[in-house]
Order: sequence, then C-alpha cells, then structure tokens
Amino acid sequence: MSIVVRNIVRAHPSSVERLGRFGVATVHEAQGRTGLLKPYMRPVYPRATACGSAVTVLAQPGDNWMLHVVAEVLQPGDIVVVAVTADNDDGMFGELLATSYRARGGTGLVIDAGVRDVRALAEMNFPVWSRAIHARGTVKATPGSVNVPVVCAGVLVNPGDAIVADDDGVVVVPRARAAQVADAAKAREEKEEVNRRRLAAGELGLDIYGMREALSKAGLKYVDDPPER
Amino acid sequence: MSIVVRNIVRAHPSSVERLGRFGVATVHEAQGRTGLLKPYMRPVYPRATACGSAVTVLAQPGDNWMLHVVAEVLQPGDIVVVAVTADNDDGMFGELLATSYRARGGTGLVIDAGVRDVRALAEMNFPVWSRAIHARGTVKATPGSVNVPVVCAGVLVNPGDAIVADDDGVVVVPRARAAQVADAAKAREEKEEVNRRRLAAGELGLDIYGMREALSKAGLKYVDDPPER
Amino acid sequence: MSIVVRNIVRAHPSSVERLGRFGVATVHEAQGRTGLLKPYMRPVYPRATACGSAVTVLAQPGDNWMLHVVAEVLQPGDIVVVAVTADNDDGMFGELLATSYRARGGTGLVIDAGVRDVRALAEMNFPVWSRAIHARGTVKATPGSVNVPVVCAGVLVNPGDAIVADDDGVVVVPRARAAQVADAAKAREEKEEVNRRRLAAGELGLDIYGMREALSKAGLKYVDDPPER
Amino acid sequence: MSIVVRNIVRAHPSSVERLGRFGVATVHEAQGRTGLLKPYMRPVYPRATACGSAVTVLAQPGDNWMLHVVAEVLQPGDIVVVAVTADNDDGMFGELLATSYRARGGTGLVIDAGVRDVRALAEMNFPVWSRAIHARGTVKATPGSVNVPVVCAGVLVNPGDAIVADDDGVVVVPRARAAQVADAAKAREEKEEVNRRRLAAGELGLDIYGMREALSKAGLKYVDDPPER
Amino acid sequence: MSIVVRNIVRAHPSSVERLGRFGVATVHEAQGRTGLLKPYMRPVYPRATACGSAVTVLAQPGDNWMLHVVAEVLQPGDIVVVAVTADNDDGMFGELLATSYRARGGTGLVIDAGVRDVRALAEMNFPVWSRAIHARGTVKATPGSVNVPVVCAGVLVNPGDAIVADDDGVVVVPRARAAQVADAAKAREEKEEVNRRRLAAGELGLDIYGMREALSKAGLKYVDDPPER
Amino acid sequence: MSIVVRNIVRAHPSSVERLGRFGVATVHEAQGRTGLLKPYMRPVYPRATACGSAVTVLAQPGDNWMLHVVAEVLQPGDIVVVAVTADNDDGMFGELLATSYRARGGTGLVIDAGVRDVRALAEMNFPVWSRAIHARGTVKATPGSVNVPVVCAGVLVNPGDAIVADDDGVVVVPRARAAQVADAAKAREEKEEVNRRRLAAGELGLDIYGMREALSKAGLKYVDDPPER
Repeated sequence: MSIVVRNIVRAHPSSVERLGRFGVATVHEAQGRTGLLKPYMRPVYPRATACGSAVTVLAQPGDNWMLHVVAEVLQPGDIVVVAVTADNDDGMFGELLATSYRARGGTGLVIDAGVRDVRALAEMNFPVWSRAIHARGTVKATPGSVNVPVVCAGVLVNPGDAIVADDDGVVVVPRARAAQVADAAKAREEKEEVNRRRLAAGELGLDIYGMREALSKAGLKYVDDPPER
Repeated sequence: MSIVVRNIVRAHPSSVERLGRFGVATVHEAQGRTGLLKPYMRPVYPRATACGSAVTVLAQPGDNWMLHVVAEVLQPGDIVVVAVTADNDDGMFGELLATSYRARGGTGLVIDAGVRDVRALAEMNFPVWSRAIHARGTVKATPGSVNVPVVCAGVLVNPGDAIVADDDGVVVVPRARAAQVADAAKAREEKEEVNRRRLAAGELGLDIYGMREALSKAGLKYVDDPPER
Repeated sequence: MSIVVRNIVRAHPSSVERLGRFGVATVHEAQGRTGLLKPYMRPVYPRATACGSAVTVLAQPGDNWMLHVVAEVLQPGDIVVVAVTADNDDGMFGELLATSYRARGGTGLVIDAGVRDVRALAEMNFPVWSRAIHARGTVKATPGSVNVPVVCAGVLVNPGDAIVADDDGVVVVPRARAAQVADAAKAREEKEEVNRRRLAAGELGLDIYGMREALSKAGLKYVDDPPER
Repeated sequence: MSIVVRNIVRAHPSSVERLGRFGVATVHEAQGRTGLLKPYMRPVYPRATACGSAVTVLAQPGDNWMLHVVAEVLQPGDIVVVAVTADNDDGMFGELLATSYRARGGTGLVIDAGVRDVRALAEMNFPVWSRAIHARGTVKATPGSVNVPVVCAGVLVNPGDAIVADDDGVVVVPRARAAQVADAAKAREEKEEVNRRRLAAGELGLDIYGMREALSKAGLKYVDDPPER
Repeated sequence: MSIVVRNIVRAHPSSVERLGRFGVATVHEAQGRTGLLKPYMRPVYPRATACGSAVTVLAQPGDNWMLHVVAEVLQPGDIVVVAVTADNDDGMFGELLATSYRARGGTGLVIDAGVRDVRALAEMNFPVWSRAIHARGTVKATPGSVNVPVVCAGVLVNPGDAIVADDDGVVVVPRARAAQVADAAKAREEKEEVNRRRLAAGELGLDIYGMREALSKAGLKYVDDPPER
Repeated sequence: MSIVVRNIVRAHPSSVERLGRFGVATVHEAQGRTGLLKPYMRPVYPRATACGSAVTVLAQPGDNWMLHVVAEVLQPGDIVVVAVTADNDDGMFGELLATSYRARGGTGLVIDAGVRDVRALAEMNFPVWSRAIHARGTVKATPGSVNVPVVCAGVLVNPGDAIVADDDGVVVVPRARAAQVADAAKAREEKEEVNRRRLAAGELGLDIYGMREALSKAGLKYVDDPPER
C-alpha cells in the first residue's frame, strides 16, 4: 500500500535548533550512542551541516517519483529522509528537486541512494548526505510512501524525528527525546571544553579520566623494552 | 594479440565542445539514460571537468606500459580511457604521464584503476577520473592494446567516442550520435531552465509535470493522519 | 597479554625529515615498491601531509582505550599508527585526542578504523589517515598493546619505523633503512625532474625510457586502421 | 541503558508453524514485499531452514556477552536475532552456544555479525544466517540489551515477531500480522501452482499474466532484425 | 527505446556443444584470456554447468518485466543473459521463470542481479549464475530490451554469442569465433593432459615450461638462507 | 629484489600434526586470539581442512610465475601461503599446479588472490583457501620472492610457521610457539567438552562461567515487561 501521510507531529523547532548547534558526534554521545546512520552516508560537499524535522520517504530502486510527491507536504524546517526498498545508487535527486525543496522550506536531504548535480548543490549550498554520487537518472513508475517509519542506512527514522548532520555523518533523535538530548549535549560539550584545555596543556587522559587503575586491573603491563621475539 | 591502432575516426570537435558545455547528468538523460560509467569512478579533485574524443587503452593489472604507448597517438582534444583486464587499484598514472599527455594535447584521463600524485594533478589542473587513489607503482612487462573497443567501468567505449566528465561522473556518447545528443542536451537544458524558475517560485513538480493522475491510478492514497500501528 | 613498551628506538629525526620532503609515491618507489598501506586509507581532509616515527597501537574493535594510553609515551616527532584486531569503522579518535597528541608532540595519526570531528581536525590542521569517517563512539573496556609490531592496512609496522603520508596514501619505511631510502628518493626525484622537462617539451616516454624494442619483442604491433570486426 | 526484557508477547506458534511451510520468497511477497533482510545475510550451510518467534539481542562489536544472557529467556520455538551497534564480522557464536540454545528450545540464529564452528553447526543441524564466517573470538566486557526493538541487516525486528529463513534469506513478519500473512502466503502458493503447470506446458507468462497490452502502452516494440549500428 | 529483436543469428549448435565440453578456464585461455565475466558472478548451486547461445536482456533495476518478455523468443539451446541498467541485487528470477524457460528450451541463466528460489532451482537442476541471492520481489513497470548488445558483469555480450559457465564463472565467446575457439580449447586440453602427467610424476613446471633462464634474466636469485633482517 | 630462500626452519611436524587435530577457532583462542586471517579467505569447497608448515610466496598482481617457482622448494607437509603486492582476484592457481604441489608433498594452498578449476580441486581433494574464485589467467613476466616474510590477508606469516585451515578460516601459529599452542588447544578443548555437556543438559553459560555479578556491575538490568515507548 502506498500512502502519503499529510499530518505528522514534528520535533519542536527550538529543540531542533538547539541540537543543530552541536556536532553529530556530540548528539550521538548525548543520547547514549544510538541513532547514528552507517558511515557510508557522506555529505556531497565538505563542511555541509543541516538540522531539521524528518519528513520520510520510502522509494523503489531506480524510481524517484516519491521525491516529487514529498515536496507538497514539506514545511519550513523539514529535512527529507529517503529510504529505498533495495540497495540502489541511482541519482534520484538533483538541482531541480533541491530548488523545489528549498522553495518549500526544506533544509536538506538524507538519502540512502545516489544524487547528482553535486556541483550545483554545493553552489546553492543545499546540504545532502547520500550513499553515492551518480548521474544515472530514474523512472517515475511505481509509488512508495511518504511519512511512514523507514529504516535509512541501518537506523529507524519516524516522521517528525529530529535529524542532525555534518561532516561526521547523520544522527537521528526520536522526537520525544529531542529536548532532553539537547540538554545532555550541552552538558557534554561544557565538560569537554574543560578537558580540552587540560589536554592542550599536556595533561594525560589517563589522569583526567582516572583510567590507570582500571587498566591495571584489566591486565595492562608496562615494560621498559620490547620483549625478545 | 597486442595492437596499437594509429588511425581512428574521432567525434567531431565541435560536437565534443558542445557536449562539454552541459553536465554529465544532462548528456546522460539526453541520450536516453545510457552510456554512464559506474559510480565508483570519481574525480581525483573537486570541480574537475573534461571532454574529449576517446583514445582507448586496454592494460594488464599492475602494468602501465600501454599508458606510455598511448601518448604517441594522442591528438589535441583527446581524452585517454583506460580499461584493465582485471580489477586493479594500482597507481598506473601520475604527474609525469600527465605532463606528457598534456604536452601531446590530451585533455584528461578516465581510468578503471588507480592513480597517484593527485595533489600535483590538482595543481596542474589535469582532470582525472579513477576507481582509486593509490601510490603503488606498476611494472612494464606485458603489452595490451591501444584504440580497440574496451569496457570501462561497465560501459563499452569505442575509440573516437565522445567523453564528458564532471563531479557527477563520466558519460560516453557514441561518435555517430554526438551531434544529435548535443542538440537534445541543449533542448533539455532549456526546458529545465523554465522548470527551475517555476520550482523556485514554489510550484510543485506534481503540477508542473502533471503527475497527480498517474500517481492516483498507480494506487497512491493520501491520509490525514498516520494509521494505527 | 597487553603491554605498553616504554622505550623504543626511533628512526633518526633527520632521516624522517628528509623522507617527509618527498611524496609517498616517491618514497614507495625508492624503497623498491614496498611498505604501502592499502588504498582504503585516506586523509580526512585534502592536502594533509605528515611524517614521523611510528608509535604503534593494537586496539580492540569498538574500544579506544589504548588511544588514551599511547599519549603518555609520545615524543615530539612521533606519529601514532593504530591497528585493530578486527575490521571496524567506529570513530575511535576525535578532536580531544588530537589536542592531547599535539600537546605531547604527536605529528599525526594513521588508523585502520574510523575517526570523527573531522571538521575540527581540519581546522586545527592535525593530519589523520583512516579507513572511515564515523561519529560512532567507543567503549573503554578491553586493553590492547602499545609499541608492539602491528599489521596496519596490510603492512607490517614496527615501532620506530618512519611513516610518510600525503594525499596518495601512507608508506612505512623500516627504521634501519630510513637514511638509505631518503637518499634513493632524492636521486629518483632528481631523475624525474629531468624527465618531466623532456616530457613537457613533447618528447615521448617511449623514447626517453627506450621502450620500443622491448615492446616489439613482447609482441606489440602497430596497425594503421582498426581490424575488421 | 542495558536491559533484559523477560516477558514478551510471541507470535502465535500455529501462525509461525504455518509461515514456516512456505519459502522466504513467498512470505515476503505475501506481506507486500516488506520485511526482507539485506542479501548479505546467508545461511552457513546449504538447505538450512528455520522459523520461530524472535528473541532479539543488541550487542557491541567484538563482544558476545549478550549472546550468553539471551539463553536464559529462550522458550521452545524461539529464534535468536542479533543486531550489533556497529558493522562487525567477529565470530560471536559457535558450537557451544548452539548447544545451549538448542537445549533451551531455540530453533536457530539470525546474526548481523560473524559465526564460527560452521562445520559443527551443520553436523548438529542448528541453522544460522550470518553476515560472515569468521573464527575470531570476542570479549565479554560491555553489556547490550535483550528483547528491545533492533534493526538487523536493514530491517526493524520487534521481540516476538515471526521469522522465516531459508536458502533465499531471512524475512520478518510483524507479530500482529503473522496469521494474516500465512493466509496470504497459502493463497499465493495455490495460485503459483496453477501457473507453474501452465508455464511447464509451454504457455507464456506474457499471456498468463496478460502483459502484452501494458508492454505495448509502455512503448515496447518488436522488430524482426537487429537495427543497423 | 525498448525493443525486442525477434531474429538473431546464433552460434552454431555444434560449436556451442563442443565449447561446453571444456571448462570455463580452458575456453577463456583458448581465446586469448578475454571474455570472462567479473568474479562476483557465482553459480547458485555447486557443480552447475551450462552452455548455450546468448539471448540478451537489458532490464531496469527492481523490474523483471523483460524476463517474462524474453521467454517468447527462446529457442532450444539458448541461455538467457541479463544485464541491468544499474547495480541491483533484487531477486528478478525464480522457480516459475525457470519452469517457463526450460519449457521453451532455455538451458540456463546468467544475470547481473539477484535470483531467488535457489533450493528449487537446484532441485530442478536449472543452472543460474548471478551476483546475489535475494528473495526480494520486483515490479513490472518499465520495459527494457531483448536481443540488443549488453555489458554483463563487465563484458560485452552480443545476441547469439556462445556462453560457457561452470564453477569457475562465465565466459563469452563471440559467435563468429566459436568454432575456432573450440578447436583451440581442444588443443590446449590435450597439451595440458601431457603436462598433468609429468607434473603428477614430480617433474617441475620450471623445467617443463623452460622458465629458469627467463627467471634468471628477470633478476631472480636463489639464496640458501634467509638474509639478516 | 627477488629471491628464493632454499633453506628454512619448519615448524616441528608433530606440533603441526597436533595443531591440525583442533579446529581453527580453537587454535586461534589457544594462542590468545591472534594469527587469524581476514574472513574473506574462504575454502573453495566445503569441509576442506589442512595443516602444514608455511612456504611463503610474494607474487605480483596478475602474475603467477612464482607459484611455479615455489614447487621446487616444497617438502612433504608444506602448505603454500601466497601474498600479492596488490589486491587482485585473478585465478593464479588451478588443477595443474595442484597436481604439481601434491606430487612434491604440498598439503594445501592459502592464497590472497583468486583460483580456478575449483571442481577439479574438490575432486582431487586438494584444499585451497582464497579470496576469490575466478577463471582469469595470469602472465609470467615479473618475479617475486619465495620464503620471505609476507602479510597474507592481514596477518604476518614467516616461512616455517604452522598453518591450520578449515571451514572457519585460516590461522597462523609462529613456528616457535607451535608446540605450546598445541598444548593450550588441547587443554581448551578438554574444558570445552565439559561445558558442552553441561550446556546440552540445559545449564546456562551465565552460571557455568559465573557471569551474573559482572553483568550486574556493568549495569545490566532485568525488567519484566517492555518499557513504554
């Protein structure tokens, strides 16, 4: 069954905006090391960053029909998350769709497939994370769905979840936890800032984090010289 | 049998030049979505573009002898297309060969193997698309052929075919069709320019391309709220 | 058994510095085409270069405990080389560890695993070569070893070996051969400079390197026109 | 947070048993082409088949602690489904755990990681689907969870879902739909049996499925001879 | 343009039959080490062998419509060779199509995509070589072509070419060369039989093939003991 | 420099024979989870097993010359271990070389490249572990070395090391440790036999291995019902 769900509950804009201030690595840690898409998802140009509330698409391999359908339900602050029913590298998305999404308020795209027109995407600064860059065009023959739960690059994404993406990858924060994770990310960053200064001054993580005793208990030995082979 | 074919019929320079004005994605669409190399072929530096008439090389894995041989038959406007008889990532090409090809009029390289000296290639602005970047050197022990038909990254390339390459990949246009495809690419780009403006103004692809009826016939339903799970 | 070897013999700083002047491709050729890590090892930002004396780490998958341990034994001019006991893309290293390594004199990192905070690494210009970029955090539960021989990306690295890394990849030079390889690299580069000028002037490698007779003996034939198919 | 959920609602044994009579391909089609794990999941010996109610495990890379924990909550008819927080090929499971699972009523294992002792598994006829065969042992250092929702090889699996696996792969049927999908699978198989006989008699799918008109509308042309090239 | 070419010239049945007596490795060598599909093409059950005249299919990813279309043009002794316009692992082929192909005289299938029902295929002894085994079903929405030249797994296949396949892979012999290659394969096999007996008796290939002088010229040295490290 | 080292010290035959009685998984554990080749190394037919003393080969990609050279230095009980200077899947080895190796006392082959004639290898029961099966033939143009240390599939192998291989993969035991590892393997197997019986009787690994306290300390919680989502 192919459906488009028109009304979804989105993560609160202020939570999304707060999450967006932190990097992907910090958000991922702040929610207990969950929600991270597989590492084959890469930005199509360097230093791209995006955050938004997920509008999800389930598409067929080699068919980008639903990427046109989704434009109609976009609201300002949304990021489009595309899963495909089978592994596929075709270039489902390019400059024209980016123009359309931007006009409708879309802030970026996360797609477990290919994209094209990457130079134009960089020039218009429309951030995209994809599994491939490939010019190959697609058909418009078989519908999928919009705003259903999808598994994108190994992670369950529900419509309305918060998405944060940067050079380190893409992380999904369940809508209901967005505010709480933003708080935890802030706390983590403050703690890290202290440690950064101590490490920059030459202190060792071994001492700052108090690791020596646990390492010793776990069996680590220090020797002065290499053992005979 | 190892042969070098000295005389080939090349795509008409004006057709090649016209094709080069359009991106790979446009040319690929304009010739009916054919001729695109597999997406593992990537430029070794960003924003590289090239077009030319293909001079083909069939090489052995780990052996770059034929990449020296081909230099002699290059003419201004040629692009070298290298296939290898087995998958191989060795660095068959680097700064010195690029210097030689440029001196002989070569406009770029498409190689289903590895290359090295990529920083120097970027600095001299010699565009290369390859399956890998790898410093590993090669031997000169077993000949291959020059200017025979080859399959490069999944696509048949005949000597003299037109090649267009950019950040989106590499596309091959059969020599005899180069002028006609350039025309079609121009027509497509003009149409796209109109659609780009309409999409930028917020119109939907659904309406511009008249997709609603076909989607409905194909079974797509709109629902207001997520179905109960 | 998990051990940290405190005292290792390092490659001589002047040899390391001399090797660092040449690119990876040149050093690899100069030592007889050995010591090159597999091509999946890529710099996390463009135009990164590094050289140093290897301090080695053997870590467990998903566990970066030893990357904290190694900081204590770093000396100025060291480069950290991390192997993992199983293929793993987790982000074992990021901005904080880079800050610590730099404070202790570390010149870079080569890691057969993932890293994160790559934008920060680029901004602080701390060079890293890795198999993946991935934000996924790691545990600190199981010790490995420091300064034991490791196989990193297919190559044996002994503590104290010289490491050279750039856009073309990473090469390892055994400590005892560092001076001799630096000499050979210099000789090679001088010879290449001569050839570069001749090639730029349009001379052919076929003639400069005297390949014609060997090609003919190996069976290469020149034909004027394509054979009938 | 690491938890073990002791009480889960399982798919009804009779529905699981009925689903098990059909192949994976039939069940996948019968539920609308959903629920299929990625094709890298392969049986470790030929002609293995299994069905059961999913007991889920979320493990750390290189750590099989939770595979011991899960044994305690197994009930007869359960199949263990293991997801790992990062891609990992380590051999988390072997003959001893298979012996334990069988003694507790387990009917098989689906694991997005590696396994070992595959000859013994074949001899004891304990069916396993995995992403790799690898003897590499694992630590027991970091807990994960049991009976939480997991994404295994690209598909969401909830505890208690029905699992069917054979030479064609692994399919997940949501618990609540198990009976209905079993009905649909039966209907499909009956229809296929009729078609199989007609096809075996030489009738064409083109006619049996009435495809000719749609193909013609979609633009397919028949020509007697190859077009000139 | 989607076309079905009804009349093709096939390799002569007696040449195909003679080629089929030799293994893939022998045929590949006999035609000068060309024509071999990439090694990811594997038989779906062990000890499968097939030979035939190629009837080619160009299909869309995730769409097996043309695999129904091709059945109508099959003649006894044909083997179906399927290329897809983009990399795709979907299960385009299964027991029902195998039943149909067999009824029409098809001798096997070579497909650069996925297949399913592999247990049934083994039981009915219908040989298939594919890039994947995957139960995932496909749509019938977009036509491709039948009996046009295709690139399958890296090799150009023209309709009517001879195909030989076994546990070692798949090789294509151009139609016009089938008889000549069969002769060369026979000669090679006879020569190998002599060498097999000499090798089995303990003679060395070094002596049988007269390699010692060339090895010495190429710089190979024999030493009694390992050099000092 | 290409060398053949004629005299190497081999692992003691009785240690090799004792190691061969245990599976790869047991030997790998018995020597502290080291020495295991990467999991892409697979037997070319099921239920193959081999053990022997390593005679090593370093070959060029696409060149099997050294596989002929090594035959001369084989002694009864040797297993040939082949590394290639670059990743390569060509079929470097087949029935004829297997015949030769067997005649000279070779017990099997471990090769980080491709092999062919796999049906014949199975019929003659000559065990081979490889990274690929591929009919593609190789040249004999560039020498490598015999009996030098090599890195094969990620592991350092010295000439004379003991090799054990079975359906779980391949493990290398340093020559000097062979006897000691065989003892440890025996002890491990005896302990496992006891545990196997207890597990078969329904006892839990949690209790047999005393894991409950450590799991609790590490934070594992048991809950009766799934938490609210």
